[in-house]
Amino acid sequence: MHKAQGIKKHDKYAVLLAGGQGSRFWPQSRILEPKQFISLYKKTNLFEQSLKRIRRLIPSRNILISSSELYRTQILEYARIFNIPRPNLIFEPEGKNTAPSIGVAARLIHLRDPQARVCMLPCDHLIQNEGQFLKIIDKALNICGDNLVIFGIPPYRAATGYGYIKVTKPQSQGVRSKGLYSVDKFCEKPNLKRAQRFLKAGGYFWNSGIFAGAADTFLREIGKHLPELHRKLENIHVNSDITRDWKAIKSISFDYGVMEKTRSLLMLKVAKIGWLDLGSWQAWDEIIPKDKEGNAFKGDIISLDSRNITALSQNRLIAAIGLENLIVIDTPDALLITKKERSEDVKKIVDILKANKRQEHYLHLTVHRPWGHYTVLNKGQDFKIKLVEVKPHRSLSLQLHKKRSEHWIIVEGRAKIIRGGKSYCVNSNESTFIPVSCVHRLINPDDTVLRLVEVQSGRYLEEDDIIRLKDDFERI
Amino acid sequence: MHKAQGIKKHDKYAVLLAGGQGSRFWPQSRILEPKQFISLYKKTNLFEQSLKRIRRLIPSRNILISSSELYRTQILEYARIFNIPRPNLIFEPEGKNTAPSIGVAARLIHLRDPQARVCMLPCDHLIQNEGQFLKIIDKALNICGDNLVIFGIPPYRAATGYGYIKVTKPQSQGVRSKGLYSVDKFCEKPNLKRAQRFLKAGGYFWNSGIFAGAADTFLREIGKHLPELHRKLENIHVNSDITRDWKAIKSISFDYGVMEKTRSLLMLKVAKIGWLDLGSWQAWDEIIPKDKEGNAFKGDIISLDSRNITALSQNRLIAAIGLENLIVIDTPDALLITKKERSEDVKKIVDILKANKRQEHYLHLTVHRPWGHYTVLNKGQDFKIKLVEVKPHRSLSLQLHKKRSEHWIIVEGRAKIIRGGKSYCVNSNESTFIPVSCVHRLINPDDTVLRLVEVQSGRYLEEDDIIRLKDDFERI
Repeated sequence: MHKAQGIKKHDKYAVLLAGGQGSRFWPQSRILEPKQFISLYKKTNLFEQSLKRIRRLIPSRNILISSSELYRTQILEYARIFNIPRPNLIFEPEGKNTAPSIGVAARLIHLRDPQARVCMLPCDHLIQNEGQFLKIIDKALNICGDNLVIFGIPPYRAATGYGYIKVTKPQSQGVRSKGLYSVDKFCEKPNLKRAQRFLKAGGYFWNSGIFAGAADTFLREIGKHLPELHRKLENIHVNSDITRDWKAIKSISFDYGVMEKTRSLLMLKVAKIGWLDLGSWQAWDEIIPKDKEGNAFKGDIISLDSRNITALSQNRLIAAIGLENLIVIDTPDALLITKKERSEDVKKIVDILKANKRQEHYLHLTVHRPWGHYTVLNKGQDFKIKLVEVKPHRSLSLQLHKKRSEHWIIVEGRAKIIRGGKSYCVNSNESTFIPVSCVHRLINPDDTVLRLVEVQSGRYLEEDDIIRLKDDFERI
Repeated sequence: MHKAQGIKKHDKYAVLLAGGQGSRFWPQSRILEPKQFISLYKKTNLFEQSLKRIRRLIPSRNILISSSELYRTQILEYARIFNIPRPNLIFEPEGKNTAPSIGVAARLIHLRDPQARVCMLPCDHLIQNEGQFLKIIDKALNICGDNLVIFGIPPYRAATGYGYIKVTKPQSQGVRSKGLYSVDKFCEKPNLKRAQRFLKAGGYFWNSGIFAGAADTFLREIGKHLPELHRKLENIHVNSDITRDWKAIKSISFDYGVMEKTRSLLMLKVAKIGWLDLGSWQAWDEIIPKDKEGNAFKGDIISLDSRNITALSQNRLIAAIGLENLIVIDTPDALLITKKERSEDVKKIVDILKANKRQEHYLHLTVHRPWGHYTVLNKGQDFKIKLVEVKPHRSLSLQLHKKRSEHWIIVEGRAKIIRGGKSYCVNSNESTFIPVSCVHRLINPDDTVLRLVEVQSGRYLEEDDIIRLKDDFERI
């Protein structure tokens, strides 16, 4: 196996697994704006951090992004910025957990390069020591041979928020290389007592959810343990094939479906990389900087005698008097106030919202589009008011609405309008009208932002009343 | 004195003191929407409750309302509904505490009827037993003679939120009639220990802030103890005179300026009227109904394992997890979260807002006008977006703006527009434009509500850029 040290750079691949929804960061995260795309800790979001990091090791052409149809817009934008080729982008029609995602990525890579070695990277980790992290990834790609390698973090506290990996003792025959262990078994998230026992006993590691191996090995092990999935993967010859049959694919995690069953498994110990799984508001709260009273305030907050309060305000004043030990997350349409140690239960709130078919877990009042964004300011029975912002030189699709007309008042910049085959410009402090069923297009022809107020009028005002005839962003 | 029992009905007057700002109910109350005009407990607000109540005893023509220029719109509306004659309305140019308000009202009543007897009623009390309350008021008007009568509530707990009145013992010479006492002294809001001592000792009553007496007596006592104010009152001959010299009037409470000094004072014991001074969120919280967990929720609230939480949500979802003993008041531009027993400190927050010249203590995003209301939906550097609602058959003033133009899109109902001397109608789903400096008027000609979106455009977009040429609501 050690002879494999000299794997060629062009055979090394990375897959960013960026399809998750991260409901534990509600109300900041929404299904349409999941954890990996919001800036929770640094100025950049977790997806961007992951992408930038892995590019230091793996060239853009060898990086695949496995995500969801829901995040097409964001992924296309990042792919453009970071030169990820279009065939490297996988948009799943719906989430089927990690085994199908990993299978599809391994299949596409294997078709391209049968010698390929791949690391599968979730995008919800903070990693402080990037150099060390990349060294370990590279080591795993070099030494994995025909094994799957999982990355284990040495625990330094009795954490209950992670799964654990139990290894056979390092001095036993399991040691194949420095830091490499045979895996005894996987343990689900333990309670505190059990976690304390793990910590005391030694030989337990946190499961980072990062895997490495040859594309061939991934497929072979899926073939052994998930033969049904494997048969479906064999039908895939190009990226676009994945949408066929996707509905029939069973939802299952790679951990449960393959890792817990395979005999070709090693664990690589990953020490000193400053790894943190941002799995809850509390986990995030533990790492952000605090003031003398233990408070962390972002936004417009006035506090009197409050301690250990973490509060985020987006666009309103929050006044806090005599509070202790709370997390307060304020967004335009939903407010969360939770005791810190209960923040995992945000998931239950999201489940309630889903069950009640509400909107607050699905999207924000501000919705990002490839051409810019809009914010719903108000709606009544027969009208909806939006503030719309179009980026320089971007266009909305050529479109029509069957059930609504639209009034546009330009408040900043200049709009080029195509309406019923004619083209004209509308300046700031001017307005125009788009009647029902009229084919139209809104274009920002300039180098500066275009901002307008849209007043929709009609009996039906949902987003699905849009017939796109031409689009710059693959939305037809 | 007992011969006075037969005071004639047309000599009985009431003054509603409705000029206060009630900053302790922020963020629900604002300077432009003070405590007495918001519905905190019942569906009607405290002012309306006070007005309806006293009308059962005193005819509308003998009810005066003493308020502030700030609340002209609301007071005019209530006066119209409840047939209070226009000369009975007093609008102070700025707040000068209660002595000047009571003095002006007493003067105006005395000019009209030198025999008049008056009760002065604050508007921030809840009174459960109205029949009993009115009986007591009537009794005081009948028996006051040439004394001022103050109303004392028998304390049933060691409250720290009220001032106290110490009386001479009932069996002493102070007793002039059933329930009538001589006053020994006034005591400011005590701490808990002192309040407990008061309760144990007996002979202490809560100061309700309600006064009764002959108009003549009020003026006489002001003459004795606040001669400077008295001289100014003598210059008043009609309602409109009060604006003259108002700036020079000293701000002082009637309690401090007169009641604590006068020798012509009696206290009438007021038992079993279910009196409560709504002086803070906590006082309010104590009387509202709770569920089994001690929670009181109004609005869109999802709670997991929270206890003793009182939460009001106006237009957003609030999710509460594992909370205890908090009051949460959510409004579109400001959120208050306070430990229940700290709710009096809301006043400190308001002081901070004032000191920082902020808007959140002054007005809501929705502003009431005599013709309807508007809500500021968004603003940018050069634009402001409002949703405007005009009541049936009401008109805004004939006006012009020097620095902004306005786009109006009608979304419900029909608008009659006067623009540059011409008049035309705009229907739902139609728009019109008002250029800078153009004289215009917006009218709702129909029996149904008119709703429109206003997009203002210009470099200066404040409310004071309005020149009113004609107005239906005394705003010129």
